[in-house]
Amino acid sequence: MYLTQSLHRSVQQAPESVSTICGDRIFTHAQTLERVSRLAGAMRNLGVRGGDRVAILALNSDRYFQLLSAVPWADAVVVPVNIRWSVKEIAYSLNETDTRLIFVDDAFAPLIPQLKEASPQLAAVIHSGDGPMPEGMLSFETLISESDPIPDAHRRGDSLAGIFYTGGTTGFPKGVMLSHRNIFASTLGNAALGAVTSQGRTLHAAPMFHLADLASLVGMSLLGGSHVFIPMFDPVATLAAVDTHGVTDIMLVPTMIQMVIDHPRRPEFDLSRVANIMYGASPMSESLLGRARDAFSSTKFIQAYGMTELSPVATSLVDEFHEDPILRRSLGRAAPHSLVKVVDPDGIEVPRGTVGEIVVSGDHVMLGYWNKPAETAAAIRDGWMHTGDGGYMNDQGFVFIADRIKDMIISGGENVYSIEVENSIVRHSSVAMCAVVAVPDEKWGERVHAVVQLIPGQSLTLAELQDHCKEEIAGYKIPRSLAVISELPMSAAGKILKRELRVQFQNTPA
Amino acid sequence: MYLTQSLHRSVQQAPESVSTICGDRIFTHAQTLERVSRLAGAMRNLGVRGGDRVAILALNSDRYFQLLSAVPWADAVVVPVNIRWSVKEIAYSLNETDTRLIFVDDAFAPLIPQLKEASPQLAAVIHSGDGPMPEGMLSFETLISESDPIPDAHRRGDSLAGIFYTGGTTGFPKGVMLSHRNIFASTLGNAALGAVTSQGRTLHAAPMFHLADLASLVGMSLLGGSHVFIPMFDPVATLAAVDTHGVTDIMLVPTMIQMVIDHPRRPEFDLSRVANIMYGASPMSESLLGRARDAFSSTKFIQAYGMTELSPVATSLVDEFHEDPILRRSLGRAAPHSLVKVVDPDGIEVPRGTVGEIVVSGDHVMLGYWNKPAETAAAIRDGWMHTGDGGYMNDQGFVFIADRIKDMIISGGENVYSIEVENSIVRHSSVAMCAVVAVPDEKWGERVHAVVQLIPGQSLTLAELQDHCKEEIAGYKIPRSLAVISELPMSAAGKILKRELRVQFQNTPA
Repeated sequence: MYLTQSLHRSVQQAPESVSTICGDRIFTHAQTLERVSRLAGAMRNLGVRGGDRVAILALNSDRYFQLLSAVPWADAVVVPVNIRWSVKEIAYSLNETDTRLIFVDDAFAPLIPQLKEASPQLAAVIHSGDGPMPEGMLSFETLISESDPIPDAHRRGDSLAGIFYTGGTTGFPKGVMLSHRNIFASTLGNAALGAVTSQGRTLHAAPMFHLADLASLVGMSLLGGSHVFIPMFDPVATLAAVDTHGVTDIMLVPTMIQMVIDHPRRPEFDLSRVANIMYGASPMSESLLGRARDAFSSTKFIQAYGMTELSPVATSLVDEFHEDPILRRSLGRAAPHSLVKVVDPDGIEVPRGTVGEIVVSGDHVMLGYWNKPAETAAAIRDGWMHTGDGGYMNDQGFVFIADRIKDMIISGGENVYSIEVENSIVRHSSVAMCAVVAVPDEKWGERVHAVVQLIPGQSLTLAELQDHCKEEIAGYKIPRSLAVISELPMSAAGKILKRELRVQFQNTPA
Repeated sequence: MYLTQSLHRSVQQAPESVSTICGDRIFTHAQTLERVSRLAGAMRNLGVRGGDRVAILALNSDRYFQLLSAVPWADAVVVPVNIRWSVKEIAYSLNETDTRLIFVDDAFAPLIPQLKEASPQLAAVIHSGDGPMPEGMLSFETLISESDPIPDAHRRGDSLAGIFYTGGTTGFPKGVMLSHRNIFASTLGNAALGAVTSQGRTLHAAPMFHLADLASLVGMSLLGGSHVFIPMFDPVATLAAVDTHGVTDIMLVPTMIQMVIDHPRRPEFDLSRVANIMYGASPMSESLLGRARDAFSSTKFIQAYGMTELSPVATSLVDEFHEDPILRRSLGRAAPHSLVKVVDPDGIEVPRGTVGEIVVSGDHVMLGYWNKPAETAAAIRDGWMHTGDGGYMNDQGFVFIADRIKDMIISGGENVYSIEVENSIVRHSSVAMCAVVAVPDEKWGERVHAVVQLIPGQSLTLAELQDHCKEEIAGYKIPRSLAVISELPMSAAGKILKRELRVQFQNTPA
């Protein structure tokens, strides 16, 4: 199994069927293959050789899609760049991986002069945008039209497919090395759960540099389907694309789902053909799930939990369990391809119900971190990826997240898992989204601090919030301070950036 | 991914749920794991070490199921013996693989004295039957109760999982070496097509030594389901088990499907819970499919084509294509995990519609033939398994079988593909099943000879058959001679043994 395999299969079975839709631009499978093989030829002409790294710094598009096949077709390794990163961070990853070729679209072309200074090894910059071509770059379309196609290198198996940088939620960027086999283990296990529509149509609204979207891309390609791209997530653009193109499958994070279903224009659009919504990053709150079920009434919801290092799926919560008030707060159970357990610091499995570290084993565990043997050895011990996530498993194998092990709040000597507090807060009728972080406190060491984004037109005081939480959680877990903000800071993958909140609120008085 | 992985997962998620039903005997997942880990301990005590071969010669049962996990649990390699084989053939395989431990049930225990003579290296024989224990054997149940459990060796990945002997339809037995990864590639690709019911129940009616049944076993285990066993295929036993135990998934071959649906007692049984029938070995005739659809009205049919060397699935014909009069005669299209093409003798892909050899690539291609490097090199060239099957591919990637390349009839210089003739013959209203073979002919070199099994109460003459075929196929393809027999000889896997027919009818006058 390998990244270009599905393309061959789609061309064999339906050469004239739609492969991609990007704005007004439509390509068939045969056209995609033609473009991919010429792009690969162009890269070869530009000096790319087996195992070389090729970076992409772009918003979502069909050209991004073509590159994800063209790079392995040319026997190379793809480095999809986090579009939220600073030039400094991007340069760090390009320098560390000795990347000499980068594709860049209109949105990021302005960064190139700075980037070239910081990454002097960059030998060629290819402009994959639709706007005017910036000076000193090569044109994506010219390369395609003027390069001869080359045969697929059939790069596969345990060979490196891509380097996917992750900052985690803390610390320095690490390049996660994933093989073709890694990515397919996760994709096939997911597909075995029926989470992908055969010959369906996936909307790429989440950023394509992120592995969650790549997984949905590979899964749909595997089942002979087609792809629709919008440059970046936007609730109306998402609704319009779903309606116009008959989208069947979408990967979103709960915050995106919330923005889509709560949008005032939502009723204008036909969402009835959406068969599967895959979501990740966190479970959905009860009230959000209820509203999502109403808006997407013919849709199966499936939650996938994982991380880049797991290619990315470790556990799955399939649709039926969303009806259970307890289980729907879980991450689901080990996916078919995945072994999952909860262990103590010595790696010994803890009894069910006891919090420990979630560890995962299987063909989807990354090859390692690029150039970081010590970090790799720390993360993968005896074949088990140590996720750094705290959680527990119930008697039926459902995994419940406690918190990032490092993110646990220790208040007055008690461990407080912020997720539990957050789950309580979001059940307040005024709350759209929230995050709970530790802030330093003279008396308690750390204090439970709530940061809340309200539903438009609502208000909330600390006293009201505390009254609400008191009904549901122990006293020491109740927020001692509250900040209401207009918009929670999000990563490109839709995770709330607690790190930023911790910095912002570190001096909040009790 | 590995054979014991699903057992761990099932115990993690549903320890008290049903794992197996065999007659009156029911085991939960937790009980199965307990028995497997003790059986593995027993094997270890009997001297089994990493990579050693352990044979099973038995009809279908829960104990067979337990052994398929216990052998890899003990870090060993399973050798499931073809139950139709002669002692001489069995001994050949045991000797070639230096197998020292064999499990045998009541049906095959009588062969053991002869087998021990022919395979003097056999050090221990374990009786897995329910009848009285034959002298000189160890008891399966005693070993379980008296042996301590050992931890799973977690044998996995590219390591050898089993040696599956195949005679093909011609020639000497060859031991097909399959890795854990091989078997899971095929299983996951199949499951991705939705061919396995999540938490369903599989009936094992086809012989468990055969890879087709193993694939359905691994697939159902992967999705957390349970297993029902009948000792061997029998239409009434199959019907009764389906009804009594609420079977959702079955793997059968068309000849078995025919015997089930045409059985006079069939209307007595409730077949409505059967969601998936996977069938293999050959496409279904139009009339058989029609009757099968009537009998199993809530069932999806999926055809899988492959061979032991492909672990075993290469192409799939999913349910929807059974409605198409042309496509339902095909083998379907490359399964998600599989690359398939049709090539000339130089390995160059031929144009669509042109007959050539079907070749297959992917993680499901066997490691090789045991101790047969030359045969392995001949079969796997540039990573492509050469199936020996002739066929062609249409514009949508559907593969149509022509015939075994060696089995093609050359009559008067014309190539006749027996499948084409057979497809015509079975459409005659008197015909239940048929086979077409070449018999030597003075005038034509080879002659098209039809061997027919009639629907009870019907009759057929050569002239009637020729009149029927004349409407459908070219004159040189029409059978020149006919034999009506009461029962076509079948392999344990349900393939018609054309080799035997060729010998039986070699002197048939024109």
